[in-house]
Amino acid sequence: MSALRNASIKTSSSISYALARTSIFGSLFPSSTRKMSTDSKFVQAPHKLLVIPGPIEVTDEVLFANAHPSMSHMSPDFARVFGDCIRMTRQLLYSEDAQPFLIAGSGTLGWDQVSANLVEPGENALVLHSGYFADSFADCLQTYGANVDQIKAEIGGAVKEADIESALQAKKYKIVTVTHVDTSTAVLSDIKAIANVVKRVSPDTLVVVDAVCSVASEEIQMDAWGIDVVLTASQKGLGTPPGLSILVASQKAVQVFENRSTPVTTYYGSWKKWLPVMKAYENNSAAYFATPPVNLIYAFHASLTQIMQGSVSLEQRFKLHQEVSRRVKKAAEEIGFKGVPLSEDVQANGMSALYFPDGFTASDIVPRLLKKDVVVAGGLHASIKDKYFRIGHMGVSVVDPSRGDIDKVISAVKESLAEAKVSKQ
Amino acid sequence: MSALRNASIKTSSSISYALARTSIFGSLFPSSTRKMSTDSKFVQAPHKLLVIPGPIEVTDEVLFANAHPSMSHMSPDFARVFGDCIRMTRQLLYSEDAQPFLIAGSGTLGWDQVSANLVEPGENALVLHSGYFADSFADCLQTYGANVDQIKAEIGGAVKEADIESALQAKKYKIVTVTHVDTSTAVLSDIKAIANVVKRVSPDTLVVVDAVCSVASEEIQMDAWGIDVVLTASQKGLGTPPGLSILVASQKAVQVFENRSTPVTTYYGSWKKWLPVMKAYENNSAAYFATPPVNLIYAFHASLTQIMQGSVSLEQRFKLHQEVSRRVKKAAEEIGFKGVPLSEDVQANGMSALYFPDGFTASDIVPRLLKKDVVVAGGLHASIKDKYFRIGHMGVSVVDPSRGDIDKVISAVKESLAEAKVSKQ
Repeated sequence: MSALRNASIKTSSSISYALARTSIFGSLFPSSTRKMSTDSKFVQAPHKLLVIPGPIEVTDEVLFANAHPSMSHMSPDFARVFGDCIRMTRQLLYSEDAQPFLIAGSGTLGWDQVSANLVEPGENALVLHSGYFADSFADCLQTYGANVDQIKAEIGGAVKEADIESALQAKKYKIVTVTHVDTSTAVLSDIKAIANVVKRVSPDTLVVVDAVCSVASEEIQMDAWGIDVVLTASQKGLGTPPGLSILVASQKAVQVFENRSTPVTTYYGSWKKWLPVMKAYENNSAAYFATPPVNLIYAFHASLTQIMQGSVSLEQRFKLHQEVSRRVKKAAEEIGFKGVPLSEDVQANGMSALYFPDGFTASDIVPRLLKKDVVVAGGLHASIKDKYFRIGHMGVSVVDPSRGDIDKVISAVKESLAEAKVSKQ
Repeated sequence: MSALRNASIKTSSSISYALARTSIFGSLFPSSTRKMSTDSKFVQAPHKLLVIPGPIEVTDEVLFANAHPSMSHMSPDFARVFGDCIRMTRQLLYSEDAQPFLIAGSGTLGWDQVSANLVEPGENALVLHSGYFADSFADCLQTYGANVDQIKAEIGGAVKEADIESALQAKKYKIVTVTHVDTSTAVLSDIKAIANVVKRVSPDTLVVVDAVCSVASEEIQMDAWGIDVVLTASQKGLGTPPGLSILVASQKAVQVFENRSTPVTTYYGSWKKWLPVMKAYENNSAAYFATPPVNLIYAFHASLTQIMQGSVSLEQRFKLHQEVSRRVKKAAEEIGFKGVPLSEDVQANGMSALYFPDGFTASDIVPRLLKKDVVVAGGLHASIKDKYFRIGHMGVSVVDPSRGDIDKVISAVKESLAEAKVSKQ
């Protein structure tokens, strides 16, 4: 195998965030496969640089884990890996005792879980609106019978704490939901401050954070900040292919669920079904409700291990995301782009939403980026859809500068605008 | 790269079911990655033989596709692959116009889709019970407000057509559900005959087939047999890692959905959300409701291509499953095992459920199989849980005899029983 190993070895990166092989492969692979995993080094195919706000670029180690041979979801080997994922997910959110739920599905399934497990039909929910995804969360809550009020920020803004306080004083809400980073606007909400307001004004109200576009790119301290639900998905800051709904509930939220007076209104997303399963897997033993996405759990394990045990600490990871974000935004603004977020304190660190310079549209910029093998995302917020585009800067593209991803994006944006200017002359 | 290619080439199988490279890689990989895909041949790590009734063994090509570099779910390249999956799924079920839904989730999510899109609260559902999974489907239907009646067959039996006829004459049902192969008992229900009874006695009633453990291992002719819903998952006969809920609805079922008088009672599984998305992807253009499991769609595409365009035709595939099933059951019965299904006409072809010979239990046999690197499944049906075990024989283990999977299983079962006998002497 040495020819194979030598032929496919990849240039090692300057930041050593790679898998701690001795520790991870012990649990990643059952003994019968251990030899192969240490002898081979999988290298993904060359491809265009994906810098949309999720899915993001995925490391070779994570993709290799996604190509793990078929395993029984009831095997002790898999149960240990699943258990590790549960424990690492909790640690990532700085929680001691919150309850993770890892279920095959997209991030959207997290909304169903909240709406159907925590809110009983006829109860009130307050949705803080800083972009497209609040409308959808509200739609989901209403589907399951909640009475929904929304506080809408202006485009590019976050909801003001004073408005939240007034709303909480006027009506009793079972939950308040906030989108940590709204992927349609790149607006960052201050969930620590919001949780603070809720605890002060309406301490029974659960604080639910849609963190699909923020987990592992923005700091979230569940216990210290008093957050009851963090819901996310695998394909953004968590650096894993899409297909895994990840939700973490505080023990207070679990209690609220357990004290329901009416039955849970979903089957597939029912915590009544999943809670014993998650507890069993955390005990490194298997239990069955529905077949977990086995390969994706191996991939998630590989990525969580890189995040939690790599040489870049969690704190450094968040700092790197802030630095890269500032760099991207500054470079774009210098040549005439303008951030959708209205002020620096509501700017997300894992992505940028940028208005095109006057006189330019998506068709001037985005196809030119694509020709340079840089894949960005178009606008999503209905009111400004054609006026802006979005760049994701999360995960390995941020924490491993040796890849050159961020440099490539910045150069490509500059060159594309320059070319567009020439073509208009 | 030639050293790499030569070092990792796998012995080609005697049945050439492998990917038709020229046709598949054109759509599987965007142009920038095409070079890599033809230069390298991924070989999965050595591992224990997985012969549980799902997940099943997955081919190298499918696992390689699951390790596809990150792709935008909105890209034309991905949209074409997703579109192919929709078309091939329909073809696999011999349908001209049924509507597939491919959604991140487990097979269980199919029950939610049926319960929340096709049955309105207070409507009647008739569940035909041939094992564990009917109880769960009934539970799901009730969660969404259906009135559920069950007809329960004895353990190892399928529900009799005369009993179905009587039930349909006594009450009007919105849907009848039948588990094609109940994974807890390996009982095969005659869905063609059942659909016939329903069409004759209660033509408005929708015929819903839980085909999680039968698609691609048992013949299903949706249009010709008059079946309205086939729901399944990726990890059984379809030979793909778990994490994809696959449901196909007849146009009649879609009409029933569209004529609902009350709102759909799920958000994540709502056809109102997914129908436009599936139609867009079938047109090879992207649309967004929730992020699809991109890598798993690539994997599903690779597996569907092997199933639909390999040198083993669909008809041959079903015949091979029948032959292998008879061989496994005969070999086991010759040494004292006894099938859970009560008669040959209700025996599944993709799996076997076998009572241990008198005097032996799971602890005599299953750990010995595991030592021989053969992973089988324990009992699942509560009433007989400790008295039997289950073997899956689906997909590549069946259609590629050169792998020797089936021979290995049969030998290992024989040897394990012989060893158990010796140890008891």
